[in-house]
Amino acid sequence: MPATPADSSLLMSRKDLAFQLYAWLDTEALVRRPRYAEHSRETFDAVLELGEQLAARYFAPHNRAGDLAEPRLEDGTVETIPEVREALAAFARSGLVSATMDEDLGGMRLPHVVSTACFSWFQAANIATSAYPFLTLGNARLLCAHGTPEQVDRYARPMLAGRFTGTMCLSEPQAGSSLADVLTRAEPQDDGTYRLSGNKMWISGGDHELTENIVHLVLARIPGGPPGVKGLSLFVVPKRLVSPDGSPGERNDVVAAGLNHKMGYRGTTNAALNFGEGAHLPGGRPGAVGELVGEPHRGLAYMFMMMNEARIGVGAGAAALGVTGYLKSLAYARSRPQGRPVTGRDPGAPQVPIIEHADVRRMLLAQKAYSEGATGLVLYCARLVDEQHTAEDEAGRRRAGLLLDVLTPIAKSWPSQWCLEANSLAIQVHGGYGYTREYDVEQHYRDNRLNPIHEGTHGIQALDLLGRKAVLDGGAGLRALGETVAATAGEAAARGGEAAELAASLTAAWERVTTVTAALWATGEPDRALANAAVYLEAVGHVVLAWVWLGQYLAASASDDAFHQGKRQAARYFFRHELPRTEAQFALLESGDTTVPDTDPDWL
Amino acid sequence: MPATPADSSLLMSRKDLAFQLYAWLDTEALVRRPRYAEHSRETFDAVLELGEQLAARYFAPHNRAGDLAEPRLEDGTVETIPEVREALAAFARSGLVSATMDEDLGGMRLPHVVSTACFSWFQAANIATSAYPFLTLGNARLLCAHGTPEQVDRYARPMLAGRFTGTMCLSEPQAGSSLADVLTRAEPQDDGTYRLSGNKMWISGGDHELTENIVHLVLARIPGGPPGVKGLSLFVVPKRLVSPDGSPGERNDVVAAGLNHKMGYRGTTNAALNFGEGAHLPGGRPGAVGELVGEPHRGLAYMFMMMNEARIGVGAGAAALGVTGYLKSLAYARSRPQGRPVTGRDPGAPQVPIIEHADVRRMLLAQKAYSEGATGLVLYCARLVDEQHTAEDEAGRRRAGLLLDVLTPIAKSWPSQWCLEANSLAIQVHGGYGYTREYDVEQHYRDNRLNPIHEGTHGIQALDLLGRKAVLDGGAGLRALGETVAATAGEAAARGGEAAELAASLTAAWERVTTVTAALWATGEPDRALANAAVYLEAVGHVVLAWVWLGQYLAASASDDAFHQGKRQAARYFFRHELPRTEAQFALLESGDTTVPDTDPDWL
Repeated sequence: MPATPADSSLLMSRKDLAFQLYAWLDTEALVRRPRYAEHSRETFDAVLELGEQLAARYFAPHNRAGDLAEPRLEDGTVETIPEVREALAAFARSGLVSATMDEDLGGMRLPHVVSTACFSWFQAANIATSAYPFLTLGNARLLCAHGTPEQVDRYARPMLAGRFTGTMCLSEPQAGSSLADVLTRAEPQDDGTYRLSGNKMWISGGDHELTENIVHLVLARIPGGPPGVKGLSLFVVPKRLVSPDGSPGERNDVVAAGLNHKMGYRGTTNAALNFGEGAHLPGGRPGAVGELVGEPHRGLAYMFMMMNEARIGVGAGAAALGVTGYLKSLAYARSRPQGRPVTGRDPGAPQVPIIEHADVRRMLLAQKAYSEGATGLVLYCARLVDEQHTAEDEAGRRRAGLLLDVLTPIAKSWPSQWCLEANSLAIQVHGGYGYTREYDVEQHYRDNRLNPIHEGTHGIQALDLLGRKAVLDGGAGLRALGETVAATAGEAAARGGEAAELAASLTAAWERVTTVTAALWATGEPDRALANAAVYLEAVGHVVLAWVWLGQYLAASASDDAFHQGKRQAARYFFRHELPRTEAQFALLESGDTTVPDTDPDWL
Repeated sequence: MPATPADSSLLMSRKDLAFQLYAWLDTEALVRRPRYAEHSRETFDAVLELGEQLAARYFAPHNRAGDLAEPRLEDGTVETIPEVREALAAFARSGLVSATMDEDLGGMRLPHVVSTACFSWFQAANIATSAYPFLTLGNARLLCAHGTPEQVDRYARPMLAGRFTGTMCLSEPQAGSSLADVLTRAEPQDDGTYRLSGNKMWISGGDHELTENIVHLVLARIPGGPPGVKGLSLFVVPKRLVSPDGSPGERNDVVAAGLNHKMGYRGTTNAALNFGEGAHLPGGRPGAVGELVGEPHRGLAYMFMMMNEARIGVGAGAAALGVTGYLKSLAYARSRPQGRPVTGRDPGAPQVPIIEHADVRRMLLAQKAYSEGATGLVLYCARLVDEQHTAEDEAGRRRAGLLLDVLTPIAKSWPSQWCLEANSLAIQVHGGYGYTREYDVEQHYRDNRLNPIHEGTHGIQALDLLGRKAVLDGGAGLRALGETVAATAGEAAARGGEAAELAASLTAAWERVTTVTAALWATGEPDRALANAAVYLEAVGHVVLAWVWLGQYLAASASDDAFHQGKRQAARYFFRHELPRTEAQFALLESGDTTVPDTDPDWL
């Protein structure tokens, strides 16, 4: 029996999601494409409403309980609170796991952008529990794309049906950011299977009893392959071997060596997994039984398909935590009386709600700008996934792919950085109360602190953006983004007035992106160019978000009601308080500053 | 039996403290003053070494244990882990509580600057346990300044001897930032005492069994007094009434209504206290027995003496957490192998320690700049306290007071903001490991998140700086600070070369402070001037820190060894990566931006 549903108006803003999907991203246009022909705004809205209801009923109520009673490993079994299993069962019944898939996989051909918006309800409600279906979906999608029909039947379909969950096993204790150093071995067997042995680390959902089985996708080396990342192959390794009838049977030789105890995200089990340590020996032979996925030595490429999706998903989760923190601190600010206006401090006058204080409004407006901007960015990326698959012509599909390439590191890192900051402001609005576990916001802040780390750290995203994506195909991705920015700026300029002023600021900022990128690479020295990559990532991220906000400003011009005024005000805030931060960053980058690389480690 | 001492080289840098005290702040000059005549660098160093040893032996080893087993209120008694009591006993034995006091109070007339440096060892080792003596010291100092000789004997001396601890009881559930709304009442009795009734909130050290007694300093209203803060009087209210022989006896009517469960600082009990609820009724009459301190209705002024000290202490704690996080992530970065240089990624080559990666060095250099800069600022403020009390002439004492006035909100807020950021970077350097409770840095981050809240939030500091301190005495404080900045810049300019370049940047930045302050107040509209007070606080804070770093740059010019190179490099980092952030903030302020006050609450 689930608890009383949470107040969904404190999780996500239904109105803002509709604005982003329809007014800004024109998601309804997708229904004119053959793939989505059976959809309509009504079916999209029904999915969003289903997400809202399930999130409020099954996910939000145990968010704190999952934090307080983190999973425990006892006698080889991982114990979780019962509400997690109920939530996953409800999610499985909804069919949302396979929502974007084809009908033959139980799906409903839902656009990714709608699925991502729907999923944000669950992330806002309970980021830790939502991690299980999130990982499972990525895993299943990878198997459907690269696995054999048998692998799809044996592993992917049960995951899509909610019977199994999935993981991605990349890191090892000595190989986190550096996957070239993965050591796990996969020995080929006469029957075509492999036996895996090695130690994996930081495996979210790595062990639990929440579902019948767990499907691990594991990066490992087939002996004799090339060193480094080019010698990594991908294997599917189930926790329990799957019988011909599809039911999970004998335990495979995969055991949880321990659970990691984290500052946040505590409801998600996170395990060190040992493969092939002899704890369970199927058939008496050493090693965990695995099947190769796709071709040998192409594991990292396959994994990156899942990883790119996961990175946008991390951004979406960070954004959702930002939004719920904003909504909760907004509600608090409206109801908490404290102090009086700075002019006219008559102690006899009643106290005013703290939203009347300018500094509190500043903290709310900043949260709105960060979290709704981040939501916009990740939804735009999800919209690009749909374009990549369904745009009418090849040029449109290629263009979407280029934009996705260059935006993925930003969609992962910007929400992780700024919606963490939003959560910090949400605490600050609550004052001392926000620092206590009686209020949600301190948990959101702890949960969100993971997002700049997992699925590639901030520093890794920075190298990816400046070192790869900005120069890939001769800079085609950045050029495509520049054209997109210019199109929005052009539309705004044509409207004149304030819109044209914002457009001019954005155009000038984008000009800085292109000149600074060129200046950095003009050195021809990657170690100098990349030394301040994190500064570059943050500056370009802010410019991209200014583009998001200009687009939302234009989309919000249709009406002068409070909601649309709020969107425009958040856009103004972003252009006046946030975008100007970038000039100092661009100037630093353009100067070829070498303070960091010049620092001898012994000086520290 | 205490645990094995912690490695003190991971708590604070002995070398950097010595540099700050002697090379930068010329603390040795103090021994020429009559008050410190019996001191010498040797006695200062002995105190610092004592602090280091006690912190490593008694405070650091239970830092995590205190976090995991937070205090619990059971059957009216607050239980804490036994290590806290041992630590406080060791601290009491050391005589450090009264170190800065006169001999007749058991003190050793230690300069505040040395005491603050010594105390930072404890804050770095265990911010939660160190809060008890920290609060006790402030409380005792206030009583010594404003209490009667009997109050000093009855309450202050036992605190200075470590037998009692002290609290400050200001906030109430409806009165946090707004002390004008304090409701607690104090009814005068025929015997000259008062009976207090009311509810206090957020009382650190509010209840426990760690010492024989707890001395509460309580803001309350004597009936008939003026409304608002002008009607607040200060009372001393012991947990147990003190017998004529000095021993604590009967329970007073003060009870812990509950403990607050916090994200961090968990080892410090934090209680809601009820006064005069009838749980304990001394002599059968209602109310908690209290004695007036000083004159009626002057309570807030007295409390502000303690509060100003506490604010600098908050900054010192934030700085110490920043330093220990820096040192721990530095040690990790030197020892953790991961990845290879961005040029020459031969997967056959061995992995390098992560300190070899530019982005890791960036995160370490930023931490060094934030945490050592913050340490410098709080030590400078402590040095000003000594000047205020012992400078040869009245002009020098007055000048120190003016500087302290204007610097206090910055010394409280800047370390709280940027050393929290430093702790976030310390986590990031550790990667996934840093997010787990197996490493210290996640706790430092959680602990440090309190510092922008307690003892006056960030927003309150901003109003204090721009609304009061910047305009007090016709702006005398800001002028004094400008002269100080100019003196350092002049010295640097005279040296020529790089020092002169840094001086020019600092001079230009200070010029912005003065013009922007004038522009803000030129409007004559406080609500407009103060709307962006937080932006002002942050911008001025960064300029002040640039001044700190220029001073340290000059002081570090004497040698080219690794330590002094590191100090100069951190100064360069601050001037190149940090100070330029302020221009966008000053431009925003100068433009008279009204985005925030123009935001209708309904738009949010």
